[in-house]
Amino acid sequence: MEFNRALERIKVYEAGKPIELVIREFGIKRDEIVKLASNENPNGCSPRVAEAIAKSANMANLYPDDSFYELKGGLAKRFNIESSNIIIGAGSDQVLEFISRALLNENTSVLMTKITFAMYEIYALQMGAEIIRTPNYRHIKEEIIDYYRRYNPKILYLCTPNNPTGDAIERDDIFEIIENIDSNTLIVVDGAYMEYAEAKDRDYSIEPKDILKYPNVIYLGTFSKAYGLGGMRVGYGIANINLIRELHKLRPPFNITTLSLIGAIEALKDREFVEKSIALHQKELKRYEEFAKEFGFSYIDSYTNFITYLFNNTLNSTDISDRLFRRGVIIRDLASYGINAIRVTVGTPEQNSIFFKNFKEVLN
Amino acid sequence: MEFNRALERIKVYEAGKPIELVIREFGIKRDEIVKLASNENPNGCSPRVAEAIAKSANMANLYPDDSFYELKGGLAKRFNIESSNIIIGAGSDQVLEFISRALLNENTSVLMTKITFAMYEIYALQMGAEIIRTPNYRHIKEEIIDYYRRYNPKILYLCTPNNPTGDAIERDDIFEIIENIDSNTLIVVDGAYMEYAEAKDRDYSIEPKDILKYPNVIYLGTFSKAYGLGGMRVGYGIANINLIRELHKLRPPFNITTLSLIGAIEALKDREFVEKSIALHQKELKRYEEFAKEFGFSYIDSYTNFITYLFNNTLNSTDISDRLFRRGVIIRDLASYGINAIRVTVGTPEQNSIFFKNFKEVLN
Repeated sequence: MEFNRALERIKVYEAGKPIELVIREFGIKRDEIVKLASNENPNGCSPRVAEAIAKSANMANLYPDDSFYELKGGLAKRFNIESSNIIIGAGSDQVLEFISRALLNENTSVLMTKITFAMYEIYALQMGAEIIRTPNYRHIKEEIIDYYRRYNPKILYLCTPNNPTGDAIERDDIFEIIENIDSNTLIVVDGAYMEYAEAKDRDYSIEPKDILKYPNVIYLGTFSKAYGLGGMRVGYGIANINLIRELHKLRPPFNITTLSLIGAIEALKDREFVEKSIALHQKELKRYEEFAKEFGFSYIDSYTNFITYLFNNTLNSTDISDRLFRRGVIIRDLASYGINAIRVTVGTPEQNSIFFKNFKEVLN
Repeated sequence: MEFNRALERIKVYEAGKPIELVIREFGIKRDEIVKLASNENPNGCSPRVAEAIAKSANMANLYPDDSFYELKGGLAKRFNIESSNIIIGAGSDQVLEFISRALLNENTSVLMTKITFAMYEIYALQMGAEIIRTPNYRHIKEEIIDYYRRYNPKILYLCTPNNPTGDAIERDDIFEIIENIDSNTLIVVDGAYMEYAEAKDRDYSIEPKDILKYPNVIYLGTFSKAYGLGGMRVGYGIANINLIRELHKLRPPFNITTLSLIGAIEALKDREFVEKSIALHQKELKRYEEFAKEFGFSYIDSYTNFITYLFNNTLNSTDISDRLFRRGVIIRDLASYGINAIRVTVGTPEQNSIFFKNFKEVLN
């Protein structure tokens, strides 16, 4: 059977056993595993959300309200926009998929920085599009505008704050980039970690409503990070109505679960949980910065819920990740991104202490 | 901004207010609404499943095991196949999407019967493919083979039991069709309601493992119907390893939620719930058959959890649906499929009694 040509360029991802099983093979107990690899909120989700989900478990047989009336209403109120400016996805990931499928084909390209969120490339490859990357992992406005002019990409990705590096773009720079891009290129401002940037320095955050006047800009947000609902798969895109309408053509019905919908609606009502988890995070992040200084390696100033440690030649990120893994401490090796670095989700105080203890032992 | 050409042919679906809100505008209370429109399991889900989900609500922040190791293991055991024969989707809907994206483009067509599951057409249109339909809503093997030879479609859909009509194909006919189709056409055997057909008459059901020897056949199943997990969005495709591997190239990570995964794993362990809900269903289905006979209209013999009432010229399906709707009884009008018929999900005894009472009043 002949498959569509784009599939030839996609590597088959053979999922293995869950990490927990592998670790147990090393003789480590489940409750001794510290996973700081997926940027999950270490504080869980809002207790109000957990309660609402638990109370609704017996509604698992019922399809959700496919208009997402109440959730969109909540987001519209939060961001001072209209419900018609919003599309809901199974994580902002799925909105990325809609965008890629709406715009990309074998005659198009996408532009992104050297090191950024992996799904941009994966969805572009699925559509047969070409991947163009700027030389730097940082979003340098001159470089981005220059590459845009040279390659005329169909989509430009601005991941801010950027995953997996943790740095962010200043608001003024975001808008300067937008102003320099022609309306036939879609600019995606991926703000999955925006709540952390906003709390750290408002100059590095943007309001979704400020991009609505541009016909070719979409803002992405998620409940997976600051709201602590990574496992529930709820994200959103915010853009002008015409763009949202086109993307809706690709949204399958019931694309988030009934309990995800209930959880997200409730999560929007508990602003306190988000603020508290960001405050806890900021305190713990300082420990990571001090730890790096103490041991003499550098890090990227973080606007997210993780931190990226950069190593010089005396340390090897893959070696360190492997040795931590065998001790039950799971972090993200960034070697596959072409840098000698690790990404560590800032965990609870206890998790972080375990990380520091094990890291010290691994360094010795 | 120029979008991919296929989008031009797709109608924008403008989701309105949730049905509950509309009904409340008619002054009907929420607990007086009887919804028999979405083929949800009226018995809910297994109490064991609801309990497992409720107990895990505080894990909403954690991404699921993306290998779906335990769920695939459970399905493999159930169906006597290998985990590598399985792909998990957010509902079998998402597997339909993977299939469409892997195989269809503007130079291909898909073949289906006159009246069948709406998503086949929607995903095909998203890929710009042509839709070919046989003249009959029933899966008549000679007709299907004849249309296959005339149009050489890339995908042939066999929806058995068929939604929204409720009839099914005999096993021997399924395999006779398969034997007559060349290996460059994928045959999709969509068994979303197969558990109901199996319980009614084994000759109208198939074992997924029996299609594994064909390189161009995929079986689809779901937890949305007999397992009562429609709101959790979990389905699966079963096929030979080569086909499954290609489809995995299009599967996004974490495509079902953490709680959906926990629910589906538990659901597989409670066979009793499924059997009990099918037994309850069969008993109630008889009431629907008798009701039709009493009032002198015909119905399609049902192998599913719903029944399709066919009207002659004296009754109008849209008119009846509207009048029931205003009384808080929601069923599915099939006028948009080109037949004067309604589809009613067989509900609980109480729900069905309310339906019969209101239907009688509407008929008078």
